[in-house]
Amino acid sequence: MNVSNVADRIRELIEDSTNDLLAEELDSYHEADLADLFNYLKPEERLVCFKLLNYDKAADLIEYLTPQLQVELLGELDEEIASKIITKLPHDAAADVLGDMEDDESETYLDKLPEKFSQEVRELLTYNEDTAGGIMNPSVLTVSIDMTVKEVLSTIRTKAEKDNTELYYIYAVDKQNHLLGVVSLRKLLTSPTTKLVSDIMIRDIVKLHVDDFSDYIVDVFLKYQYNALPVVDLYNRLKGMITWDDVHDLFEEETTEEIYQSSGISTEIVDEDEILSGNVMNAVIARLPWLFITLIGEFLAVNVANCFNATLSALPIIAIFMPLLAGLGGNIGTQSITLMVRGFSTGQVTLNSALYHILREMVIGLLIGLVFGALVTLTTWGWQHNVELGIIVGIAMAINMTMATVIGTFTPFALKTFNIDPAVASGPIIATAIDVIGLAIYFTLVSVFLINHAI
Amino acid sequence: MNVSNVADRIRELIEDSTNDLLAEELDSYHEADLADLFNYLKPEERLVCFKLLNYDKAADLIEYLTPQLQVELLGELDEEIASKIITKLPHDAAADVLGDMEDDESETYLDKLPEKFSQEVRELLTYNEDTAGGIMNPSVLTVSIDMTVKEVLSTIRTKAEKDNTELYYIYAVDKQNHLLGVVSLRKLLTSPTTKLVSDIMIRDIVKLHVDDFSDYIVDVFLKYQYNALPVVDLYNRLKGMITWDDVHDLFEEETTEEIYQSSGISTEIVDEDEILSGNVMNAVIARLPWLFITLIGEFLAVNVANCFNATLSALPIIAIFMPLLAGLGGNIGTQSITLMVRGFSTGQVTLNSALYHILREMVIGLLIGLVFGALVTLTTWGWQHNVELGIIVGIAMAINMTMATVIGTFTPFALKTFNIDPAVASGPIIATAIDVIGLAIYFTLVSVFLINHAI
Repeated sequence: MNVSNVADRIRELIEDSTNDLLAEELDSYHEADLADLFNYLKPEERLVCFKLLNYDKAADLIEYLTPQLQVELLGELDEEIASKIITKLPHDAAADVLGDMEDDESETYLDKLPEKFSQEVRELLTYNEDTAGGIMNPSVLTVSIDMTVKEVLSTIRTKAEKDNTELYYIYAVDKQNHLLGVVSLRKLLTSPTTKLVSDIMIRDIVKLHVDDFSDYIVDVFLKYQYNALPVVDLYNRLKGMITWDDVHDLFEEETTEEIYQSSGISTEIVDEDEILSGNVMNAVIARLPWLFITLIGEFLAVNVANCFNATLSALPIIAIFMPLLAGLGGNIGTQSITLMVRGFSTGQVTLNSALYHILREMVIGLLIGLVFGALVTLTTWGWQHNVELGIIVGIAMAINMTMATVIGTFTPFALKTFNIDPAVASGPIIATAIDVIGLAIYFTLVSVFLINHAI
Repeated sequence: MNVSNVADRIRELIEDSTNDLLAEELDSYHEADLADLFNYLKPEERLVCFKLLNYDKAADLIEYLTPQLQVELLGELDEEIASKIITKLPHDAAADVLGDMEDDESETYLDKLPEKFSQEVRELLTYNEDTAGGIMNPSVLTVSIDMTVKEVLSTIRTKAEKDNTELYYIYAVDKQNHLLGVVSLRKLLTSPTTKLVSDIMIRDIVKLHVDDFSDYIVDVFLKYQYNALPVVDLYNRLKGMITWDDVHDLFEEETTEEIYQSSGISTEIVDEDEILSGNVMNAVIARLPWLFITLIGEFLAVNVANCFNATLSALPIIAIFMPLLAGLGGNIGTQSITLMVRGFSTGQVTLNSALYHILREMVIGLLIGLVFGALVTLTTWGWQHNVELGIIVGIAMAINMTMATVIGTFTPFALKTFNIDPAVASGPIIATAIDVIGLAIYFTLVSVFLINHAI
């Protein structure tokens, strides 16, 4: 779908006030496409369109919209109508929408919702929104273990339709709602209708606990690759289920955090949503900590350079190669960190393989360092007509790049050993370390071989 | 599961040669846990364990293993046994396993597989493995539109069981296998048994084409959030389906590529799998191109510095602040790039919002730059007892950081406008640009205000 073309047509329909045509056109789009369109339209245009949708379509669309747009659109509607749309949402989506509103606003809606619905949503709102309890949908289809396949199928026909339950697995529970077994729809549909649930259910259940945090939930889903997992409380009582589309959103958030952290943008203090847009001060706060650590580190580098003040005064030309050495050391070191940090998060790198990776990266650093050292030597020689300077810069380059890969590989392993998240701390620390050590090596080489030699 | 504890117990069982106990123990684990365990064990231990699994469990496990381990384990088995395990795999998994083998090796297995199975796998192997055709599972349950719900349910009971078909949606096709409609299992189970497929099927079908590439497939799944999508050929004939667990793997690969590219590790020339381990030369090739571009860029920076050779000779102390300016400019600029590049891939940043983001980042850069500039001025003043030098370095710092955020935000937008992937090109280019421009500003400030003033 070309959003801007569709938006142009929709705008024309709005201007012409041909509401019937517009309503028909909007109804013909998939809600995911409508969400794209709504992101593109201006607020007043969105509202006109939203009011033309029937309640079911409006509820479907709400699930695909960003929290900001959800609150914006529902807030503009008559409260009665908004409540009706919210009632059409799955419980977990309703809780998400209401959780994003101001407290008094969400109270207004909760009071207007059907009592059972409102009660279940209220319970969801008591859970931390980053835990399984806050993410799960409490509306789950349960059966008892002594039902036959035939009975289960007839239960589905009546209960699932009425409760708008998502269907992936059927959960077998006892009278107190303790989770006893899981039956996949596939198993249900391919088993003889006279079989009992207890005959076809799986008893070794992969499940989540209401207090499990989102990063753990993502890991479990990625590992076991189920479509949905049951969520239980401390006493194994079934509280709800989490489906893969919830996890996709979590997974995307986790990835964003991982990428942000790799460039020293903290997602611990400020929520990841508020860094890219919104209040500027939030963005400043998220970005300051690691910049400040870099500042301190770079003052160390300045100090190291200052120790070689005499060298610099004797041969000022050496200063011009500082950015070259720091830049390439920083780049290749960052590559090594990136590979290790990503490897940890996909599971391809473990603490056991530390030595292998450190040695492997060292070889890579040395190979590339020798090539680049030679290039730098030749270029400097040809350009400054100073073969000795060229050789020193070239050697410094080779040492610098090798050292950068080793530090870049070693640091994530060291942090991981002490249970510090390598994604958080590696980047800025290493860029500075490479500046400090790289410059010390370079100036030492110059002092020993060029200055003494010249004097 | 604590893998190392389990592995210790398994090793003891292997040493004691208590094969019955070991087989029972292994059979009690979920195949995802077995995969973790197999990753942890030594090759010879893995093989002992693998041989003790029954064919079904072995096939389940194979699906969770890395391509390297799949080939390793099957290669060690008797060909007859390996073929039997491969026959138990879904067609797409079998094609993946055989596609990772040497051609003559996979031919041996293909010849030993049942003819229909082997033929379907051969067809899968003709598709590019990064396209929907290479990813899909051809085994799909199809029905005709004039069947009743009751007939469909009985078809499922017989056909799905036999063919080991995954069940998410039922696809309605005509005699020539053209895709006409989709029925979800939920809809099927909640509809009256006398209804016709044509009454309950969805006709506006979200589908994939056999030639669609993996990045597009990931986008479609993320947008529409379906569990499975049908794959059709040019003439809308149903060829297979792709399920969300296939997409999870693709999504993880895409994320890895995005993260690698952000630090200048190319995944265009060398496959992303081969960068972290395997042949060292592949890793060197993946990392060289951007390092080389950085090298050229940094020589530009060296050249800029060289233009101010007279300034450096007159006041060598200014050289020691070079890493400080370059380091912090580079860091804050990288933060801006990271935010924009990630924003493009999640859809939170679009070309329309360029001006907003550039201005917003400029404000952030200016705020942080002023704070850091002040800090640097005070520190330098207190340390070098030179208030003028302190002020110049502080001003250079503020300008440098502001400029870094602007360049870091502008460049991804500019690249995107020309349809160049900003993830690929931004990082190394900008680090260099900031070095070049930042140093030019600093040296100019020094020349104008310090040197002329001093002279």
